Amino acid sequence: MAIVDLEARGPNLYSSAVTQHAIADLTAALGNKISTSPSICLAHGTDESYHRPKAVDAVLFASEAEDIQRAVVICAAHNLPVIAFGTGSSLEGHIIPGDRGALSIDTRQMNQILAVNAADFDCRVEAGVTRDALNTDLRDQGLFFPVDPGAAASLGGMAATRASGTNAVRYGTMKDVVLGLSAVVPSGEILRVGSRALKSSAGYDLTRLLVGSEGTLGIITELQLKLFAIPEAISAAVCPFPSIEAAVQTAIMVKQMSLPVARMELLDATSIAAINAYSKMTLAVQPTLFFEFHGSDAGVAEQAQALGDIVAEVGGGPFAWSSLAQERRRLWDARHKAYYAQLGLRPGAHIMTTDVCVPISALAETIRETVADARENKFLCPIVGHVGDGNFHCLLLLDPDDAQEIRRAVAFAERLVHRAQAAGGTCTGEHGVGIAKGKYLAAEVGATGLALMRQIKATLDPQNLFNPGKLGSL
Amino acid sequence: MAIVDLEARGPNLYSSAVTQHAIADLTAALGNKISTSPSICLAHGTDESYHRPKAVDAVLFASEAEDIQRAVVICAAHNLPVIAFGTGSSLEGHIIPGDRGALSIDTRQMNQILAVNAADFDCRVEAGVTRDALNTDLRDQGLFFPVDPGAAASLGGMAATRASGTNAVRYGTMKDVVLGLSAVVPSGEILRVGSRALKSSAGYDLTRLLVGSEGTLGIITELQLKLFAIPEAISAAVCPFPSIEAAVQTAIMVKQMSLPVARMELLDATSIAAINAYSKMTLAVQPTLFFEFHGSDAGVAEQAQALGDIVAEVGGGPFAWSSLAQERRRLWDARHKAYYAQLGLRPGAHIMTTDVCVPISALAETIRETVADARENKFLCPIVGHVGDGNFHCLLLLDPDDAQEIRRAVAFAERLVHRAQAAGGTCTGEHGVGIAKGKYLAAEVGATGLALMRQIKATLDPQNLFNPGKLGSL
Repeated sequence: MAIVDLEARGPNLYSSAVTQHAIADLTAALGNKISTSPSICLAHGTDESYHRPKAVDAVLFASEAEDIQRAVVICAAHNLPVIAFGTGSSLEGHIIPGDRGALSIDTRQMNQILAVNAADFDCRVEAGVTRDALNTDLRDQGLFFPVDPGAAASLGGMAATRASGTNAVRYGTMKDVVLGLSAVVPSGEILRVGSRALKSSAGYDLTRLLVGSEGTLGIITELQLKLFAIPEAISAAVCPFPSIEAAVQTAIMVKQMSLPVARMELLDATSIAAINAYSKMTLAVQPTLFFEFHGSDAGVAEQAQALGDIVAEVGGGPFAWSSLAQERRRLWDARHKAYYAQLGLRPGAHIMTTDVCVPISALAETIRETVADARENKFLCPIVGHVGDGNFHCLLLLDPDDAQEIRRAVAFAERLVHRAQAAGGTCTGEHGVGIAKGKYLAAEVGATGLALMRQIKATLDPQNLFNPGKLGSL
Repeated sequence: MAIVDLEARGPNLYSSAVTQHAIADLTAALGNKISTSPSICLAHGTDESYHRPKAVDAVLFASEAEDIQRAVVICAAHNLPVIAFGTGSSLEGHIIPGDRGALSIDTRQMNQILAVNAADFDCRVEAGVTRDALNTDLRDQGLFFPVDPGAAASLGGMAATRASGTNAVRYGTMKDVVLGLSAVVPSGEILRVGSRALKSSAGYDLTRLLVGSEGTLGIITELQLKLFAIPEAISAAVCPFPSIEAAVQTAIMVKQMSLPVARMELLDATSIAAINAYSKMTLAVQPTLFFEFHGSDAGVAEQAQALGDIVAEVGGGPFAWSSLAQERRRLWDARHKAYYAQLGLRPGAHIMTTDVCVPISALAETIRETVADARENKFLCPIVGHVGDGNFHCLLLLDPDDAQEIRRAVAFAERLVHRAQAAGGTCTGEHGVGIAKGKYLAAEVGATGLALMRQIKATLDPQNLFNPGKLGSL
């Protein structure tokens, strides 16, 4: 997915001799779990963002936490950075090494579901388990894990970037569902925090300090996760609207009525056209909301009825809902594939994704100004949004060979960030800071907040060994 | 409420001359906002815990953040600790000074509700606003703030201790409802973190690092809080059970059926007897669950019906529910006054409260063993529990003049903590660590976790000026 960004990745600052020493020590200690195959090293420095890929120096295919501990100690001795790798689906360049190069620590073999406690609605998994694998495993126990970024991401990566997705409006984000975790910290020790209790006031919330830390404070090895019961009834609904404003107004009214929707997703007309083509759907090519309701049979019907009334009030519709599992799955499958569907709108194009999140009262205006900006700049830029959270993505379809267009897109994305922050929002709702968004942090946490983050990073990782250059190069 | 604990509070390590210099400088800078009245100084070192009160050296009645900033700079110059004071309702000695004495920073005059954004379901308040004051203000806008510890606590204090209460099973704890905050940090600067967006992946989660930090990293001055719509229908239910096990089994089944109860509170037979006497109720003197349902008229009725079926299955009942606001308020008023009601069970007694939280699957067994332990030791020890979260409190009624009884009670509480931790739980679900529970932290976060907490504390507060001696004397 990666396209050329404006900052070319330079060569490593370190001589290859130093790196070769580190790799020799790693190989001596970890044998064939270490790979320096050029294609593997490049794949581990390639994500789904618009940032230029760059090969890591070596990859550790870790099968247990002890592998990571040994590697961290060796890398510390040689001052070679370490970067955790889940599935490579980051949209902000999290896995791409910086000037000092890196050992990539691939956690995909750490894929065991260690415990499922059905009575307590929790489970313990290794960091490399993907959300899909977990849900497949849970299904016959009547449980599910709700956080669903577009990609089939690893749970460790999702925790590290504080990911969310379409269910967050009802079930929360990774910060809400991670009850505890284990991580290898820069000292090489294992941090194990959080209990199985649903709440605790026992000291600093180290769990939530690690969640969203983008691999800069620790490499997550295990997660204790909250689970939910698969509801008795699930129904889905689709509703077109005359305008994005009407769709957003509907979302605001849904929240005001405290309708407990499980999903409420906005797709603009362009997105609908794309998924019609890609997923062979026949939806009206208009701004559209996808809904999902979870509850009892009667509760789900009541929610759908109440929603129908709102839709009528704002002039939307026709409003169609269905409890048929097959129709519902088809709809959400199409939604999850929206990213790939959009690629079909401009053959050869690559995607740059924005990720602002604003107070819902500012959502319609923020989208309106953003659509106008995109139109003025002639960007093909479908919009999808987790509208119940105020989070939306512009998927800019760009010619990877057109440096001027990419430069204009970066400027567009920057204007969008400033617009969102001016409305009380954030530069990133769920993708993280990564390589490029560090410069926006000061506007959200101030110089004092940045200084605190830097102090925490410097004291916990004095060598700046863990994913340096991310999170604004703290 | 305070009774004598085993560790007597010693005299200040610092000469009164040093403290007098600090107070002179504070008074010069802040005038009559500084008080050294002995009764005021003692009141600010007295909470509702069993810990021995101790007078602070002076009190700042802060009316704005700048007052706190000026005081912090002066206290830093003299190395005089600072302790934030909300309403003094801590149950873990958080506001009691240590050997170095302290300036208490009273935030009660910082009681402005700065903004209520009804469309976004959020508000911004000063730290001294109490939860009751906020809810009174919100009522005519159809909104409410759900976190409700027993006391009429300040929101700043609730955030600092990561408080929760009876609504947490549905609406979460302070960690879930604090969207952002401002705090004066040890450098004297103002930290302002968190946006008005409902979610963000923008850097380390400093908001949640401060929530639960017990005044050791910053003094909270403002909070951005999540609000909720007052539901269309609210109903309450009361149900006696033949045993605590049957009541807990009911709670587990409610969770397994994903019944979205708003409240689910356990009271043992002793507690029921106490509130019958104190609040003039006529409840059956048996283990009892209090419930509250929020939703639509039909939804609330459906929840009550489903609950009735569960109750019948475990042999509980009779099960009575009501949508009458007056009956409901009377019930919850009685529940919130349970602490004071229990005091009537043993005239002259004071209360020591425990606060463990365990996975719900371990709740019945943990309570069973604890009841047996209390019986064996002849403690009068009513139990109330936020049973949907696995959190329960033993309210040990103790003779404040019986040092031997208090010593036995401390040992009982310690056995309870070990029992809870062995079951995967925590020593504190919602009251915090404070003076006495630091020794239990290592069992929950390990030596590595403790070391990380210490590093964070040492780097952000190198003088150990902010509430030293709490959170395990990090």
